[in-house]
Amino acid sequence: MPQGAAVQIPVSTLPTVDAQIYPKGGLDILSREEVARLRDASGGMHDLLRRCALAVLTSGSASDDPRAAQELYPDFDIQVNQQDRGMRIDLLNAPAMAFVDGQIIRGVAELLFAVVRDLAYTAIELGPEYEADLETTAGITDAVFRLLRNARVLHPTDPNLVVCWGGHSIGREEYVYTKQVGYELGLRGLDICTGCGPGAMKGPMKGATIAHAKQRRRRTRYIGITEPGIIAAESPNPIVNHLVIMPDIEKRLEAFVRMAHGIIVFPGGVGTAEEILYLLGILLREENAGRRFPLILTGPTGAAPYFEQIDRFIRLTLGDAAAELYEIVVADPATVAQHMAAGIRKVREQRVEQKDSFFFNWAMHVPLAFQQPFAPTHEAMAALDLHHGRKPHELAADLRRAFSGIVAGNVKEDGLRRIEAYGPFEIHGDPDIMQALDALLRAFVEQRRMKIAGDYKPCYRVVT
Amino acid sequence: MPQGAAVQIPVSTLPTVDAQIYPKGGLDILSREEVARLRDASGGMHDLLRRCALAVLTSGSASDDPRAAQELYPDFDIQVNQQDRGMRIDLLNAPAMAFVDGQIIRGVAELLFAVVRDLAYTAIELGPEYEADLETTAGITDAVFRLLRNARVLHPTDPNLVVCWGGHSIGREEYVYTKQVGYELGLRGLDICTGCGPGAMKGPMKGATIAHAKQRRRRTRYIGITEPGIIAAESPNPIVNHLVIMPDIEKRLEAFVRMAHGIIVFPGGVGTAEEILYLLGILLREENAGRRFPLILTGPTGAAPYFEQIDRFIRLTLGDAAAELYEIVVADPATVAQHMAAGIRKVREQRVEQKDSFFFNWAMHVPLAFQQPFAPTHEAMAALDLHHGRKPHELAADLRRAFSGIVAGNVKEDGLRRIEAYGPFEIHGDPDIMQALDALLRAFVEQRRMKIAGDYKPCYRVVT
Amino acid sequence: MPQGAAVQIPVSTLPTVDAQIYPKGGLDILSREEVARLRDASGGMHDLLRRCALAVLTSGSASDDPRAAQELYPDFDIQVNQQDRGMRIDLLNAPAMAFVDGQIIRGVAELLFAVVRDLAYTAIELGPEYEADLETTAGITDAVFRLLRNARVLHPTDPNLVVCWGGHSIGREEYVYTKQVGYELGLRGLDICTGCGPGAMKGPMKGATIAHAKQRRRRTRYIGITEPGIIAAESPNPIVNHLVIMPDIEKRLEAFVRMAHGIIVFPGGVGTAEEILYLLGILLREENAGRRFPLILTGPTGAAPYFEQIDRFIRLTLGDAAAELYEIVVADPATVAQHMAAGIRKVREQRVEQKDSFFFNWAMHVPLAFQQPFAPTHEAMAALDLHHGRKPHELAADLRRAFSGIVAGNVKEDGLRRIEAYGPFEIHGDPDIMQALDALLRAFVEQRRMKIAGDYKPCYRVVT
Amino acid sequence: MPQGAAVQIPVSTLPTVDAQIYPKGGLDILSREEVARLRDASGGMHDLLRRCALAVLTSGSASDDPRAAQELYPDFDIQVNQQDRGMRIDLLNAPAMAFVDGQIIRGVAELLFAVVRDLAYTAIELGPEYEADLETTAGITDAVFRLLRNARVLHPTDPNLVVCWGGHSIGREEYVYTKQVGYELGLRGLDICTGCGPGAMKGPMKGATIAHAKQRRRRTRYIGITEPGIIAAESPNPIVNHLVIMPDIEKRLEAFVRMAHGIIVFPGGVGTAEEILYLLGILLREENAGRRFPLILTGPTGAAPYFEQIDRFIRLTLGDAAAELYEIVVADPATVAQHMAAGIRKVREQRVEQKDSFFFNWAMHVPLAFQQPFAPTHEAMAALDLHHGRKPHELAADLRRAFSGIVAGNVKEDGLRRIEAYGPFEIHGDPDIMQALDALLRAFVEQRRMKIAGDYKPCYRVVT
Repeated sequence: MPQGAAVQIPVSTLPTVDAQIYPKGGLDILSREEVARLRDASGGMHDLLRRCALAVLTSGSASDDPRAAQELYPDFDIQVNQQDRGMRIDLLNAPAMAFVDGQIIRGVAELLFAVVRDLAYTAIELGPEYEADLETTAGITDAVFRLLRNARVLHPTDPNLVVCWGGHSIGREEYVYTKQVGYELGLRGLDICTGCGPGAMKGPMKGATIAHAKQRRRRTRYIGITEPGIIAAESPNPIVNHLVIMPDIEKRLEAFVRMAHGIIVFPGGVGTAEEILYLLGILLREENAGRRFPLILTGPTGAAPYFEQIDRFIRLTLGDAAAELYEIVVADPATVAQHMAAGIRKVREQRVEQKDSFFFNWAMHVPLAFQQPFAPTHEAMAALDLHHGRKPHELAADLRRAFSGIVAGNVKEDGLRRIEAYGPFEIHGDPDIMQALDALLRAFVEQRRMKIAGDYKPCYRVVT
Repeated sequence: MPQGAAVQIPVSTLPTVDAQIYPKGGLDILSREEVARLRDASGGMHDLLRRCALAVLTSGSASDDPRAAQELYPDFDIQVNQQDRGMRIDLLNAPAMAFVDGQIIRGVAELLFAVVRDLAYTAIELGPEYEADLETTAGITDAVFRLLRNARVLHPTDPNLVVCWGGHSIGREEYVYTKQVGYELGLRGLDICTGCGPGAMKGPMKGATIAHAKQRRRRTRYIGITEPGIIAAESPNPIVNHLVIMPDIEKRLEAFVRMAHGIIVFPGGVGTAEEILYLLGILLREENAGRRFPLILTGPTGAAPYFEQIDRFIRLTLGDAAAELYEIVVADPATVAQHMAAGIRKVREQRVEQKDSFFFNWAMHVPLAFQQPFAPTHEAMAALDLHHGRKPHELAADLRRAFSGIVAGNVKEDGLRRIEAYGPFEIHGDPDIMQALDALLRAFVEQRRMKIAGDYKPCYRVVT
Repeated sequence: MPQGAAVQIPVSTLPTVDAQIYPKGGLDILSREEVARLRDASGGMHDLLRRCALAVLTSGSASDDPRAAQELYPDFDIQVNQQDRGMRIDLLNAPAMAFVDGQIIRGVAELLFAVVRDLAYTAIELGPEYEADLETTAGITDAVFRLLRNARVLHPTDPNLVVCWGGHSIGREEYVYTKQVGYELGLRGLDICTGCGPGAMKGPMKGATIAHAKQRRRRTRYIGITEPGIIAAESPNPIVNHLVIMPDIEKRLEAFVRMAHGIIVFPGGVGTAEEILYLLGILLREENAGRRFPLILTGPTGAAPYFEQIDRFIRLTLGDAAAELYEIVVADPATVAQHMAAGIRKVREQRVEQKDSFFFNWAMHVPLAFQQPFAPTHEAMAALDLHHGRKPHELAADLRRAFSGIVAGNVKEDGLRRIEAYGPFEIHGDPDIMQALDALLRAFVEQRRMKIAGDYKPCYRVVT
Repeated sequence: MPQGAAVQIPVSTLPTVDAQIYPKGGLDILSREEVARLRDASGGMHDLLRRCALAVLTSGSASDDPRAAQELYPDFDIQVNQQDRGMRIDLLNAPAMAFVDGQIIRGVAELLFAVVRDLAYTAIELGPEYEADLETTAGITDAVFRLLRNARVLHPTDPNLVVCWGGHSIGREEYVYTKQVGYELGLRGLDICTGCGPGAMKGPMKGATIAHAKQRRRRTRYIGITEPGIIAAESPNPIVNHLVIMPDIEKRLEAFVRMAHGIIVFPGGVGTAEEILYLLGILLREENAGRRFPLILTGPTGAAPYFEQIDRFIRLTLGDAAAELYEIVVADPATVAQHMAAGIRKVREQRVEQKDSFFFNWAMHVPLAFQQPFAPTHEAMAALDLHHGRKPHELAADLRRAFSGIVAGNVKEDGLRRIEAYGPFEIHGDPDIMQALDALLRAFVEQRRMKIAGDYKPCYRVVT
């Protein structure tokens, strides 16, 4: 062997297991047609199932590379059957890490059945024959509602669901902090909902698990909401006891907003910043004025600059009124939990007053523009209007899009190729806004929250 | 007051109650669209809801006159709302009999929510836009499956569901007998499913309730399957803890056949005889040969002649092979329960062997003809072919139709009018078959199992 | 075979079963010493166990002859073992009627384990070594408390326990009435406690079972409190889901009084009349004045004379104030239940006010005289003092004793022998009181509520 | 204030809370006598209750100084009442750390009720009047059994209880390791029982909590067994969901041995070494030969020398046969859990075979000498016989005593005083044994597992 040659570990040596899995509790009963649809290789359904199942089976593994699992377990396969006492899942060459002494970890098995349930539902109920239903605001919201209902996560209990957002690859100090916040939330009887990957998505659940044990809460909810495009990269931790796979990223965001009784944002990457802008874009709409929605940005002492920057950016672009929609708390988990609990009590009062449901925020206005995907083409980017004087919610929406496009132009394969082909995006906006945007992005790069190869070079130019 | 004047009791004096009802357990979460559909008076949905709700609220009342409840509670109304913790039902001028000291009986409330759940589901999922789906055998079976699944009555537990058929207005001896059979079934851990009216539909559940208490069975199932056309006449007893409202009589029959692990037929009226022929028509199909399906005809000593007649009729028309599909047990509840339990153990074995589901009999072949309604016009009746030599299952199907048409011609408003207008039906058939049919009908009249005004006069003539 | 010879049915032909029974839920864990004590034939413990177990195994049989079961199952035996997962009971030649297809009825098994639990507890905790503890009022009440606690029937839930007293061999009309009252109690969420034999002890439980099913009450309590001397004659119906075996008749009566939130008295024999006097004797004490204790005497129309006579007797002897402690309701189950529910709400208020426990009526004063047995010797009877002018509660106590002695003198083997040997009892009392007593007894004989051989002849003479 | 004066922090400034606590689930129903006994200040009962309650309320605090809590909360008091729905506990000036926003942490409240339950039971059932019962082996074992039964920790479920022993003040590496072992045990469905302080008593429970959540185990057991003398120093972590307070250290050790299906020993101080000798002294008895009892000594890599030393000492003194009773596993949590699970499966087999109970190891022979306390006087120490040639189990017993006495002589107030007064202990033993003992103690001092002031100086001299 020549010196210096890389030692290639043959991936096929990773231990695998064949297994047959049956659900407990028997909630998951499929019709013949649903089973047929899941087995259908032609429509891509089987491949989607295979990818999502693999993500669940490798949950807890360190890597956040979506392709890794596929390459590490090339022979993995899954078949869904309907038998005797209900559904049976056959696994072939499944990752051994999901098993203990040959037995699948019960929580992993539950997540597998959630995958099957949601993909079957999406395939049948949101299939191509119902496309027209999904072209209106009401139709999309109804689809989000029905999917969540079918996943049994809509409970008419007292409001207590805290959605936690934040980065999936944060540092140890920030991770420990998310656990502490989760612990304090759990002590106060609050349940957790996240995007269900590692980092800020896992910490709060882990902390809450210990607190819930101390408080003897048995019927706890650790809800993970994901979608097929990211599940592979952010595979659900098995603490998640309710997993929902929404069909796309926009429906996932709407699910968060409709289910949350409050949202906590931990430090994260650019994705997290985008989510903040998405949420402000909704909350700033006149239709949503006066609607209670506790929103807390928090992190350990080291994360203070991160939130200061974001706060500055928001005040500059959307005005001080926008900054009143959230509270920033630094290094104080108990206060975060107390304020969140108090805020949720007010949410409860408002829902009772306005005869609104506890479990689904029907009253929140989410416009069609927020429900449809944004594709960052040169045309779309040129159409953005980042000038002062616009309505804040409109500006928030365009800022989010600008952000999304710039990120794509810097790190996503698609975006990189477009910039290479057609040159930098042209964005119309006031110089101070554009500079603030630029400063924010540079800070993310410095704090290693946005990973780029080489130096940061803006992928756009400003047209005032 | 003039002599002979009827004393008119003002119906408005019947005590009523206004109430707001909330579900417990929170399973019934409706979407905005579903609530809107249920409130929609234009499409008749609201009226349907009102009628079914009234049937549930007057459950346990003596009368079996469908119009009675409507007339006794003319001001009754119901509204469905979606609030705070979920659904709320507002009742106006509701029958006081459903309440105890102003509180609704919990079981009645549960049935109300079942009504709302099933009508909402039917309105949305089986609405006019999906008509095409309901034109194939597979499509109809899928609809039956999905409705039952949505009603949470498909459980992947060990087979133990006994469907009981029989008359809703039977004599005391027969009623007590159905209780005794229910008791013996209950002692053996079997659950009960009926059409959920009084008489043979109520007795087995009542007997099983006492036996289940003695056996400390907590998770018992007393399933009632009904449809909008008969719920008013056969209102569900509150022992029913799972109520399902199928959209029509044929889907209701298919639901019985698909869910049953065995069927017991008690004495009943002509409807019961029709049900026996329906079932034999299915079981006699070649596709269903060898399929385990315990079927027991039973009653007290006094009912022996009834079953002898039916047995004779079946042997004459469908042959002795058809008679081998059922067992007749007279006045021996323990034996009925033992044979049923033994039969169900064999059903279990077969389902395991053939990798069939426990909770839905997918493998049973139910042809389209049995899924579609039969309208007894003169043309349809003339098209029947009641001659020896046909395949037994085809003859069974036509016999059932003949039966259905003759009953209509004798007692149903529609049928009586047709006979008046166009004269007796012409039926093509062998004389001995027709004579046997006639004898059977006359016996029903004598035993007061078919109620006619005046003497019995055949409404058909035979064309050989 | 000589004419007229009695046909002797060999009792050994009654079907029996051998079985090994394990408890579910695992509440009944015995120590080695407890098992040893139960197996110990020398101390009579094993025989006591055998007799009580046989009573439970023949529950539901028609006979109320205590010797019958012993004679019908002469080879029956029971052994208690402690193994693997806990206790195991071995049954030899056990009555087949307790089994269904070879499996013991679950409710019967639970009662068996209750027998073992209570006898073991009594043997150890109330054994001869603790005799001194049982010689004070406080000591006896403490023993009653600990036995009930050990039997897990003391629940700190809202007051809802109705004790029903009445005859075990009543007529059909009266039996049906007790079922109706039980049904109405059950509809109102009330639980039932009786002496756990047939008749008025079974009817209310059966009625409540149906009502609880309609109200979907899952955690219902049908408590039977018995003692070794009567369990054989009044074997517990398997609806009883909590059986307690108190060591003697006085502790059983105290258990009723301490646990009841209200008492309903149905028609019964002389025993029932005695129980009424026992209760009035307690309620009339000054220490118990003002203590809420709903007491309703009720029966169908035909039982009206029975209660009128008792009422007259009480007013004559104890005064009208005594009659204000109870209410007589004739033929109106719903009213009985409404008044009982209202009375229990007041009991609740009083307990909260006075910081009293819900589950054990510590505040009720039960004097030592009521806790100790009364042996009706000639001396004891001569010591009674049935004159006007005494404190009502003292007179009530002596009346109860007189009653008890007279019944013994008429129907109990012991008493009959004493009368034969020493002549009639001499009782000191005012003539009108004695005449009223006599009239009451004669009425009981006429109504066949006291069964005597031949004509009724008083076994006492009055000394004024 | 004079310069240099110590700033005295007034302890009264530590935040406190007054509260009234009610149990959930209502298992804890006290009799009047029990309440009176607990309130009785004269017998020291109230003070005992106060101390134990304070330990529970300060659980999770860092200090392991028994006096600390008493001094930090000098005004703390507790009163037990019996009211309305059962017991009520009044807390005065209770540590605020047990509360979240003014509400007591549910798990802490449960532990409080456990304290009351066990002290009440001990006061009444093991009170001075029953002293004679506690003078025999059988009597003591029976007392241990009854206390555990009363605490509801004897469950007839499948054997799965792993007792974990080890130090309460171990280093971070060792603590993390105990969590990992707990996690692996939890993944395999094993429950945890410890002495319920911090360190090795808390780590395994914390790890198991996460694993049980992943495996969706709801009915988990984290049992803590303590006694009044050490609860203050080793206050129970609130993860403990079953707390038992045994009356003394010997009954606590017997409780561990009788309940354990296997024992894992983590690194610890001298106490841990004593426990190993206690256990070997029992297992080496001839009566216990062949009895399955998985025993694993384990720690992270850094703890390897600790176990090597202990192993060497055991082999030298008790022989290689003694060393076959345990397995040493270094730095391999999964293997520890696999071997323990396998060992427990064999325990199960043996119990079934020998018809032994699952939940209490009746068959294990624990001689009276191990049930009685050892008081290390000069006489007692001089009576020890540490020579080769004795039966191993006898030598083990004396070694444990020697150990115990030497520790007392070095670190316990009592022992230090004795040594000061009477000079060093005289111990009779073979020189090599005594040297090995000495070496072991010196190693503990070096590893900081035995904390002494100044240099280590033997408190004994050897008499050969």
